[in-house]
Amino acid sequence: MSTDHNKFQAIISHCKEYGFVFPSSEIYDGLSAVYDYGQYGAELKKNIRDYWWKSMTQMHENIVGIDAAIFMHPTTWKASGHVDGFSDPMIDNKDSKKRYRVDHLIEAHAETLPEAESDALLQQMNALLAADDLAGLKKLIEDNKIKCTVSGTVNWTDVRQFNLMFSTQLGSVTDEASEIYLRPETAQGIFVNFLNVQKTGRMKIPFGIAQIGKAFRNEIVARQFIFRMREFEQMEMQFFIRPGSQEEWYAYWKQERMKWHLSLGTDAAKYRFKDHEKLAFYADAAVDIEYDFPIGFKEVEGIHSRTDHDLGRHQEFSKKKMQYFDPEINQNYTPYVIETSIGLDRMFLLTVCNAYEEQDLSTPEKQDSRVVLKFPAKLAPIKLAIFPLTKRDGLPEIARELMDQCKSSFYCYYEEKDTIGKRYRRQDAIGTPFCVTIDHQTKEDNTVTIRYRDNMEQERIPLSQVREKVLAAIL
Amino acid sequence: MSTDHNKFQAIISHCKEYGFVFPSSEIYDGLSAVYDYGQYGAELKKNIRDYWWKSMTQMHENIVGIDAAIFMHPTTWKASGHVDGFSDPMIDNKDSKKRYRVDHLIEAHAETLPEAESDALLQQMNALLAADDLAGLKKLIEDNKIKCTVSGTVNWTDVRQFNLMFSTQLGSVTDEASEIYLRPETAQGIFVNFLNVQKTGRMKIPFGIAQIGKAFRNEIVARQFIFRMREFEQMEMQFFIRPGSQEEWYAYWKQERMKWHLSLGTDAAKYRFKDHEKLAFYADAAVDIEYDFPIGFKEVEGIHSRTDHDLGRHQEFSKKKMQYFDPEINQNYTPYVIETSIGLDRMFLLTVCNAYEEQDLSTPEKQDSRVVLKFPAKLAPIKLAIFPLTKRDGLPEIARELMDQCKSSFYCYYEEKDTIGKRYRRQDAIGTPFCVTIDHQTKEDNTVTIRYRDNMEQERIPLSQVREKVLAAIL
Repeated sequence: MSTDHNKFQAIISHCKEYGFVFPSSEIYDGLSAVYDYGQYGAELKKNIRDYWWKSMTQMHENIVGIDAAIFMHPTTWKASGHVDGFSDPMIDNKDSKKRYRVDHLIEAHAETLPEAESDALLQQMNALLAADDLAGLKKLIEDNKIKCTVSGTVNWTDVRQFNLMFSTQLGSVTDEASEIYLRPETAQGIFVNFLNVQKTGRMKIPFGIAQIGKAFRNEIVARQFIFRMREFEQMEMQFFIRPGSQEEWYAYWKQERMKWHLSLGTDAAKYRFKDHEKLAFYADAAVDIEYDFPIGFKEVEGIHSRTDHDLGRHQEFSKKKMQYFDPEINQNYTPYVIETSIGLDRMFLLTVCNAYEEQDLSTPEKQDSRVVLKFPAKLAPIKLAIFPLTKRDGLPEIARELMDQCKSSFYCYYEEKDTIGKRYRRQDAIGTPFCVTIDHQTKEDNTVTIRYRDNMEQERIPLSQVREKVLAAIL
Repeated sequence: MSTDHNKFQAIISHCKEYGFVFPSSEIYDGLSAVYDYGQYGAELKKNIRDYWWKSMTQMHENIVGIDAAIFMHPTTWKASGHVDGFSDPMIDNKDSKKRYRVDHLIEAHAETLPEAESDALLQQMNALLAADDLAGLKKLIEDNKIKCTVSGTVNWTDVRQFNLMFSTQLGSVTDEASEIYLRPETAQGIFVNFLNVQKTGRMKIPFGIAQIGKAFRNEIVARQFIFRMREFEQMEMQFFIRPGSQEEWYAYWKQERMKWHLSLGTDAAKYRFKDHEKLAFYADAAVDIEYDFPIGFKEVEGIHSRTDHDLGRHQEFSKKKMQYFDPEINQNYTPYVIETSIGLDRMFLLTVCNAYEEQDLSTPEKQDSRVVLKFPAKLAPIKLAIFPLTKRDGLPEIARELMDQCKSSFYCYYEEKDTIGKRYRRQDAIGTPFCVTIDHQTKEDNTVTIRYRDNMEQERIPLSQVREKVLAAIL
């Protein structure tokens, strides 16, 4: 019904209109690349978060969760390499004062060229980026006469590195104030707590530590709605293993994580693995799990074999022995690590995109359509909507009794206004899997009409079975 | 067994030793007033968070939740008054370069004086603080010859205001970079989203918006473990009402919130209300719910009647009409607000302090003791520990079957090492309400020993009843 780009725009509008995602501080005209989750978005996000947390911790005896602070000792980010290496090359146009990320500037220019020239340019660029050759990048821009889109001139500054971490000052006492960073990833909170968790939790390798939390990156060009934000939430798990077993565990977690995605009922054809073309110098292997968004296949999760790089660096910088004594082989070693890292906001966007459908319900007699979010029942913000057919005749009282029976077990929604048809449509639009209508027949035989979101079929069932029916679908 | 101060220290040690709370970045010698939650702490914190969220949103038809970003448009904090008013008066000693919060400096001096003089000094100080009289505060320090504890001199700078908000730079393009703040409270995320939520959620007054999230304050002296941290988590709810009904709703939420606390089984004598002595200029009424910590009665939650102050200020700064049309009285108005605001970290500390017991279990024959955390079952990190008596004879297999039956319903822990007595003690120390032992008799009659944390009693019950028994206690 809509092209894919239109579909993405329609999803963004739907998210706003139905209380899933609002631009941050919208009354002040928003804050670039920052978003707030509204009343249904907050529930959906929480349900995804809880589903990941439970499947990672409660369902795995050898994985525990932690909740580390966003603020960390600044040396953490020296050890991790973020202070020196977490940056993008940038260039400023001297006339317009506009700053560009060098790769974006060159890529935009390449798109205007014939394919062969474009490919050659991008190949040169990638070689220079890989070699960290800033002067070479500037020369490439000048040689190609790439212009600023604002001033139209080729009057460029040198290319410089710009760090993506946000910094702030901790402490108010002048002589103790120190520059700290908002963490750009949650993983380091796990590494610096490795010894504490392993010892106090009496963990035996192989074991994992999971964490969910906010991370912050001062992206030059943040875009595509909540796909790339400056403030976002990660769900990460570091799995600590014996050196030499990384191939086996990498393969294991690759499959396990894909299974997790498919457990939500998504069509397997919407997913693919994509190996990293260029490995970070410390990585053994790395793969992305990509989903087929309306804007194309994009990364949702990464599985990375990180060797002993992180623990080794923290050992070097902290002088604490980041080691494990393995009683089975009677040896001390620095564990190797397999990481699974998924963006909660991206998983949210995936869930909405995968659920979103515009349906033409027209008949020869009547034009009709609906937008429905076919969320997996366990992720849906509202599980059950309860409608008395009218506001009279004792129907609201029966509906209220059902609310009282159900609402402590799952999220219910009560509504008595408008026609039943309109009420159904509103629940479709927020993805509620079940609606129940209480009518006059209910007073006679204690049955109700249950209506199913996905196929819109209706069925008469005993009032006493409603709760069990919903519970069976969401557990 | 320990004095109250010792008890507090013992609780802090216990939190570290059993994986509840670690100093942040401890391998780098920590970060002042920042803490990480370990494997059991993260679960306990999550359980408290979920209990609040469910009781506020799912259980109240007229309260919805949101999840707004930490980053907000900077004008938000001008409107809220935080840019101009959220500060503490500070003074520096010119010799030692040490900076003090003026009230702390004077209070510390007052403690060295006889009671009458001390009271007089504090009274003078409070009057000057209330009047924002910085010169008067400096004179008070000089007149009383208050010395720097480091240099021992009275060589002071002027008194200046120091803002408690953390700031950082958003955006990488020089000409668009702007100073933003880490939110010092979550409440403003609710106010700026008032219109979006009310409209898209079709909310009718009275209704509430709830939120849980991180907030940040650059406290001069942060102390008392996780009681006052620079990074902390708030659970706030703003209840929007018709002007004139604030007294009634204030009384309602005061009682409701106390009921919530008591629903966790805490002795009512441990709680008290404390009215604010000094009301903020926009507040109608304000009260704290205080809990009797080992370090004395301290604020855990506040209930505040905030009038239409916040919405009014946002209307003024944003030029958007922050109003509601009330169909029942056919009028437009800016709603009044009752706020309930509780610190998640403080509630965590309360839960641990209230649960912590050192018990002398000595008999004439044998010295014995235990530390037990008597958490409400629904908040306990682990609900059920499952122990095969030995690692042989098929007992682990039966225990594993029970794990598989239970682990998707609640958090279980499996352990087969050490004596049963030692295993019980370890579960006591992390607050697990139920332990089940599988022994040789289990193979004959399918019964197990269930052992209760609080009274240490044991009972033989059918294996098939274990799951239901635990479920009944935690739901």
